[in-house]
Amino acid sequence: MRSAKNWKLTHFVFHPAFFDFLELNNKAPMEHSFIAWAKQRAARLPKVKLGIGDDCALLGSESWDAKESELAVTTDSLCDGTHFILSECGARAAGRKLMGVNLSDLASMAAEPVAVFLSLCLPKKNAGDIAAEVFEGVFELAEKYRVAIAGGDTNVWEGPLAIHMTAMGRVPVGGAWLRSGASPGDAIVVTGQLGGSILGKHLVFEPRLALAAELRRLGIVSAATDVSDGLGMDLLGMTVASKCGAEVHLDRVPISQDAVRCSERSGKSPLEHALGDGEDFELLLAVPQDRLADLPSQIDGISLTPIGTFVSRTGLWSKEKNGVKQLHARGYVHGR
Amino acid sequence: MRSAKNWKLTHFVFHPAFFDFLELNNKAPMEHSFIAWAKQRAARLPKVKLGIGDDCALLGSESWDAKESELAVTTDSLCDGTHFILSECGARAAGRKLMGVNLSDLASMAAEPVAVFLSLCLPKKNAGDIAAEVFEGVFELAEKYRVAIAGGDTNVWEGPLAIHMTAMGRVPVGGAWLRSGASPGDAIVVTGQLGGSILGKHLVFEPRLALAAELRRLGIVSAATDVSDGLGMDLLGMTVASKCGAEVHLDRVPISQDAVRCSERSGKSPLEHALGDGEDFELLLAVPQDRLADLPSQIDGISLTPIGTFVSRTGLWSKEKNGVKQLHARGYVHGR
Repeated sequence: MRSAKNWKLTHFVFHPAFFDFLELNNKAPMEHSFIAWAKQRAARLPKVKLGIGDDCALLGSESWDAKESELAVTTDSLCDGTHFILSECGARAAGRKLMGVNLSDLASMAAEPVAVFLSLCLPKKNAGDIAAEVFEGVFELAEKYRVAIAGGDTNVWEGPLAIHMTAMGRVPVGGAWLRSGASPGDAIVVTGQLGGSILGKHLVFEPRLALAAELRRLGIVSAATDVSDGLGMDLLGMTVASKCGAEVHLDRVPISQDAVRCSERSGKSPLEHALGDGEDFELLLAVPQDRLADLPSQIDGISLTPIGTFVSRTGLWSKEKNGVKQLHARGYVHGR
Repeated sequence: MRSAKNWKLTHFVFHPAFFDFLELNNKAPMEHSFIAWAKQRAARLPKVKLGIGDDCALLGSESWDAKESELAVTTDSLCDGTHFILSECGARAAGRKLMGVNLSDLASMAAEPVAVFLSLCLPKKNAGDIAAEVFEGVFELAEKYRVAIAGGDTNVWEGPLAIHMTAMGRVPVGGAWLRSGASPGDAIVVTGQLGGSILGKHLVFEPRLALAAELRRLGIVSAATDVSDGLGMDLLGMTVASKCGAEVHLDRVPISQDAVRCSERSGKSPLEHALGDGEDFELLLAVPQDRLADLPSQIDGISLTPIGTFVSRTGLWSKEKNGVKQLHARGYVHGR
């Protein structure tokens, strides 16, 4: 019941006297080696005003220009057996995915990442190795996108691996892309190719931060979300938030090779996989018609594909030759 | 492997069209009822610029005066079987404790809470009821201390209950109490009574936010932390961070009735319980000698007890009649 197995990353890591502290308190070897290693690894990342080493981190003007920026905050948990299978993918891939899904949320708001906070519930067996591998996966994207790892909490327990992150980013005041910003007439645009992420992409996807930054610079996006639940579901979510509907040209939906591969085994069409699978972590965007001419066809090799139009009639609709048919959010068309 | 059981609290709750969305997508009853209930409950709490309902929350000038304040951020996870026993205390108590430990961290930095983000890994059995009860426990302290519940993530999995929170507070620029701020000569002050929290206090403690706000107003604190690992351990942590040592008058340590009760069964002394048990969530403070006259003896019925002095000689020491003896961080004195 006591939390003797629990140490708080924010208390000790990074402090020069940490090793004295460990020695004085006979901290367990797993904690010792993990914290020492994490300290060394994270030293190369950007810093916040006060990072790991106290009861709280402190973020101030070094992290964002508070007069010009707002703070975007997201939180996500990933569980062994639900979002990843530890015995198959390993803890590093789980850590990378955790960082990826959080950064994808920031990208979908047009926010630039500043700092993340990591919290781990570790199984007793190999707790130290697992903690280090999760951290390494987080670190990979933290280094790539220059994000501070500003705090955390690590616990060892009887349960399976559960990992948690809160990510914070800066966005110019009034500049965040909301789900609710789409208007009838806006084009529906999706990045990359969709479907079949279960074959690997759900673990190794690239959060669309660079692409979002370029689009923010162009100033042509009126609403956005990321494709986590599936194109159909997430598009429906945007229409509900924006109080409108959507007409999709299904033949324009960019279908991934993995969607085709899944289709060979599933009995579903590649399109159904593209619309319904989810965990693509691509961006789903609304672009006003009068700005569509400024939409690049690709950014850094990632395609931007107009697939339809937001409309005033609520619901999801498949644009057919002779009108529209109802499109189910899970990916099939009624009566087609 | 797909996250069909996972919905993101930030996507949907609070949106007026949420029920349309649920109906369209046949969301599971547990999610339906939990979100509807959470929406209703949280409507009475303070708001951030953009709360639950999008990929990220947005915090701006409505939450803190960005020119005058910094943001303090802390994260903590609690696990069934380690930090609480669900079958004994129930999920509401676990949620209240989660909120309490996060608010205690903010109090120990002299920060005023602004918003929290809640993330749940729920066991399949009774997931909906458990989610609602955790939320209710969080809500109890959110309402009392006027904190926004600004986002979250809920997952159902095969594991036991694991609950996670990131809390954010505002603190005047340069005004945060750090662990590293103590100087030799400063008095060591502790709030309340210590020890035996396992008998109940570790679940029902009051985070010392009001007390911290009053002490911040008085401007007499040079360093602080909260007592989570035990007075000895946390005092040692402060001395390591502040590069000094501490001499404690053990006869001045305020011992709780529960420490006495634990002692009757444990074979340890009440003092050892007070020094070593932990999870008291009281504040441990450094107060410069020349400000000690301004230290109240109590605030709102919570005692403030000077128990010793920070000294230049590193380590923890028990102040005895004829000098000092080494004090172990776990609560016993060498050679006494």
